Amino acid sequence: MESKVVGLLGGGQLGRMFLEAANRLNIKVNVLDAPNAPAKQISNHDGHFDGSFKDPEAVKKLSKTCDVVTVEIEHVNTQVLEEISGEVAVEPSWKTIRTIQDKYAQKEHLQKHNVATAESLPLESNTVEELEKVGQKLGLPFMLKSRTEAYDGRGNYPVKSSSDFEGALKALGQKPLYAEKWANFKMELAVMVVKGKDQVLAYPAVETIHEDSICKLVYAPARNVPSSITKKAQELAKKAVSCFWGKGVFGVEMFLNQDDSLLINEIAPRPHNSGHYTIEACPMSQYEAHLRAILDLHLDEEGVQPYRPSVMLNILGGASPQSAAEVAKKATEQSTALRVHMYAKGDARPGRKMGHITVLGSSMAKAEGLMKPMIDVVDEVRRSRTDIPAPSSGSSEPKTKQTKALVSILMGSYSDMPVLDAGVQILEKLGITYETHITSAHRTPEWMGEYVASAAPSGIKVIIAAAGGAAHLPGMAASHTYIPVIGVPVKPTIGDGTDSLLSICNMPRGIPVATVGINNSTNAALLAARILGVAEDEIAESIRDYAEGNRKEVMEKEAKMQQLGWKGAMQEWHAKK
Amino acid sequence: MESKVVGLLGGGQLGRMFLEAANRLNIKVNVLDAPNAPAKQISNHDGHFDGSFKDPEAVKKLSKTCDVVTVEIEHVNTQVLEEISGEVAVEPSWKTIRTIQDKYAQKEHLQKHNVATAESLPLESNTVEELEKVGQKLGLPFMLKSRTEAYDGRGNYPVKSSSDFEGALKALGQKPLYAEKWANFKMELAVMVVKGKDQVLAYPAVETIHEDSICKLVYAPARNVPSSITKKAQELAKKAVSCFWGKGVFGVEMFLNQDDSLLINEIAPRPHNSGHYTIEACPMSQYEAHLRAILDLHLDEEGVQPYRPSVMLNILGGASPQSAAEVAKKATEQSTALRVHMYAKGDARPGRKMGHITVLGSSMAKAEGLMKPMIDVVDEVRRSRTDIPAPSSGSSEPKTKQTKALVSILMGSYSDMPVLDAGVQILEKLGITYETHITSAHRTPEWMGEYVASAAPSGIKVIIAAAGGAAHLPGMAASHTYIPVIGVPVKPTIGDGTDSLLSICNMPRGIPVATVGINNSTNAALLAARILGVAEDEIAESIRDYAEGNRKEVMEKEAKMQQLGWKGAMQEWHAKK
Repeated sequence: MESKVVGLLGGGQLGRMFLEAANRLNIKVNVLDAPNAPAKQISNHDGHFDGSFKDPEAVKKLSKTCDVVTVEIEHVNTQVLEEISGEVAVEPSWKTIRTIQDKYAQKEHLQKHNVATAESLPLESNTVEELEKVGQKLGLPFMLKSRTEAYDGRGNYPVKSSSDFEGALKALGQKPLYAEKWANFKMELAVMVVKGKDQVLAYPAVETIHEDSICKLVYAPARNVPSSITKKAQELAKKAVSCFWGKGVFGVEMFLNQDDSLLINEIAPRPHNSGHYTIEACPMSQYEAHLRAILDLHLDEEGVQPYRPSVMLNILGGASPQSAAEVAKKATEQSTALRVHMYAKGDARPGRKMGHITVLGSSMAKAEGLMKPMIDVVDEVRRSRTDIPAPSSGSSEPKTKQTKALVSILMGSYSDMPVLDAGVQILEKLGITYETHITSAHRTPEWMGEYVASAAPSGIKVIIAAAGGAAHLPGMAASHTYIPVIGVPVKPTIGDGTDSLLSICNMPRGIPVATVGINNSTNAALLAARILGVAEDEIAESIRDYAEGNRKEVMEKEAKMQQLGWKGAMQEWHAKK
Repeated sequence: MESKVVGLLGGGQLGRMFLEAANRLNIKVNVLDAPNAPAKQISNHDGHFDGSFKDPEAVKKLSKTCDVVTVEIEHVNTQVLEEISGEVAVEPSWKTIRTIQDKYAQKEHLQKHNVATAESLPLESNTVEELEKVGQKLGLPFMLKSRTEAYDGRGNYPVKSSSDFEGALKALGQKPLYAEKWANFKMELAVMVVKGKDQVLAYPAVETIHEDSICKLVYAPARNVPSSITKKAQELAKKAVSCFWGKGVFGVEMFLNQDDSLLINEIAPRPHNSGHYTIEACPMSQYEAHLRAILDLHLDEEGVQPYRPSVMLNILGGASPQSAAEVAKKATEQSTALRVHMYAKGDARPGRKMGHITVLGSSMAKAEGLMKPMIDVVDEVRRSRTDIPAPSSGSSEPKTKQTKALVSILMGSYSDMPVLDAGVQILEKLGITYETHITSAHRTPEWMGEYVASAAPSGIKVIIAAAGGAAHLPGMAASHTYIPVIGVPVKPTIGDGTDSLLSICNMPRGIPVATVGINNSTNAALLAARILGVAEDEIAESIRDYAEGNRKEVMEKEAKMQQLGWKGAMQEWHAKK
């Protein structure tokens, strides 16, 4: 298809998945890495090179066989890349790789381009005195980091107080270091960015969960993060990548802080663990995106829109060399919904990335449910390890799941609660998540409008609003949103409720309210369920079950009436009264 | 993960995609085929064999290196498979492959097991007299077919009248032949079936479009086929596969006849062109399913449920050797939503299967729209070919698309039409498909119930029902379905419509009707759109556009009032009246 040949430095799992994409498009990739490296195992031609991807001579030899040289790892020799770049394309540019290799230089570069990132200071000497100075400038705690050759948390040391100074220097003191202001984040996000010839595209902002400083889980898209923030994250990631040179995909990791601000944590100039989910979840995987970017093939937004929400779980080595294969085996036994990727790296060293599992769900809750048993399996494997010094710190523990509400129930005052309770009970019974709010069309018009407008972006699918008398809440809610609004007329103290019903039902053309019977929140809830059932098979299923229950109840009453006869039934009815 | 080794006879495109699945699970597959066969290109180890997969000695050598032997093509030597089956597992069984190889024996076997298939007769001699006899028994036209070595339409000859007898014998007379009763089908369907150790699973029934007797397009699921029929197709396919021996995936091709009956056309004991879509569209691809089946790995229903509707288009060779690569290139330029698979077979001979493209859509219409430009491209390539004798016959032309309705509009009589017209116009404006029906809760209670119950299974997502007076239709419709029902109260000749409104709105607890204002079909349509928008982003988008239009209209009126002043505006209003 494409006659250009790609040269790849490194043939680990990222290289292997890159080769999968290249194979499908029939594009030749020559790999430089050790014999039988994971990527080489799925590419059978005589263009590969055995050797270290850091060896200048080997890199030069590889470069003579291809049209563009790229990397699956940033810890390469950028001197030789600079040298060969006169004769062959190097993507992304050696300048980008060199800047990113040195984490402090990376941060400095971002700050120079006004990209939000944690305040950082280089250490002039690896001494206790220098750490004291840094502590005064950045405050304590701060994070001490190796400027180079750091990945998967290796090279990071949290300095919580001055008593940590000596330990930190002992751990990292052999390397050039820098210090980073402590990030008070509530969540870690990541965005894969594609930098092509003339455009920059962002995949969704995903939520990453780290454990022992290694990526454990990826939720795509990030859970419970409003779209206003995920959009900001995508923009920040694009801005960050745009200030580097050359083409390719970039993994951008960032912190979402307590105040909802975002800070770039670090950038990888290559496919990234946080983008594995794209293989199944998006039309264009991050690997195909990298290939398209470096070969100047067409790029557009279609490919980065996910089909469905997904969860990715890493398979790390445990205590035994077979541990990862055992996890994979369990995944294949668990469910055929789980897509298992094994990297064929040989023995599973503790903590080594051996494979991953991706699952897509019709909803994030469905995907989470499918993955849950495998999280338990990898947690068990982790507990068997003896190489982990201590339980990981709070911030890297998996967050407890907050279930996102699908239905929002609005009422003008507490007094509407008894009317709505029956509906709430139906939602509970059907397993439909909901939230309830007091907001009045007349007494809090701004808050009502603001809340309703933000409901859909935050994941609400249907609104139920109850009101009595001059019942304006459902209609006003419908005016502030485009999702279905169900109106429950509440019978007022004076009158039979027809006023409420007509106030809700007779809306002007253009703004519909789905009106149910007076005080009938049961039907409002069931209608919400039917509406959600259009998108969610599981909910449709539970409505059928519920209806079947009702049908049975009536049929049982009928059977009883026939059994007791009219008089007997009448008697029983009086007795129960 | 799995320590068993698989031996594969044949390393073409099906073998290649099988290797993709095996590579991800780190399962070793030894391939017997010519050097550099497509499958071998993506599997770099020393266990492969060069040679013909029909060569008994080569097959025996291969069998000594593996735990289970399987096939990617049925035209293998079943004598040697029978011979080795004492020492190594052969999946599916050599008996299955032998029976299926001979198409007449295949049909006979199916008929023996009461599986519906076209009436067939073996030819006792390849003579005109014999064809006359056959013609008398089966009627004319009939299909003359080679019993063996037939695929992609090679070996088929349509005998339309006795004047075709000599031509048919000239074309096929060197082979053992049989005749098949002419199938008067309206559509061709196919189902991939997984036969495991102790279960049989069916992927969805898909629609296949053939051109020049070769598969051109696959629509998954089949378009405009009610689920009652697709379910029957899945059951028939499972029944057919169940009567064969051994494990693996099977491609089952069938005819959907004019009278909605189904007949098996033929069965392939291996992954199949009609199942390529599963790579992207299902959690478990047909290739992984084959692997799981032959290795006794776990199987369940999760993996065969598609994420989204999809369309698959084959890339066939055209007039020039580069034609297929050019199509692939155009596909990559067209949209990153298109997933391109090239088989790396070398030069594109006319009509040779060189690759395929799959696209998933949030709806089938979306997927069709994304694929359309590529259908035009392959049609152009086909027109350039000089090897095709004549334009293909009617039945193999792509069907014109019938768009499936999402909304059903019900009314008791013609007189309700003027009230509903405004709503229909809104649906048209928003591009929402609909159908309209006359059905009365009181005058046609059975037909009403029957229609409504079948609406959801045939793809309807929302019902709008209009009624006046003792307005029972919306409520009765809601009782026969679990999808949302919107009620439009119609103002009767006598009364102001409050009777209609209350009859619709005040439903018993348990059966909700979303009631809108009297005669307000506009709001009924907009509410239907909001409901559909929960599942379909595109519809949500068009509602927003519509609302924006309304907002602008009001703002323009306000601007005009400020410009003209009260008196001027009042004057203009009188003038327009």
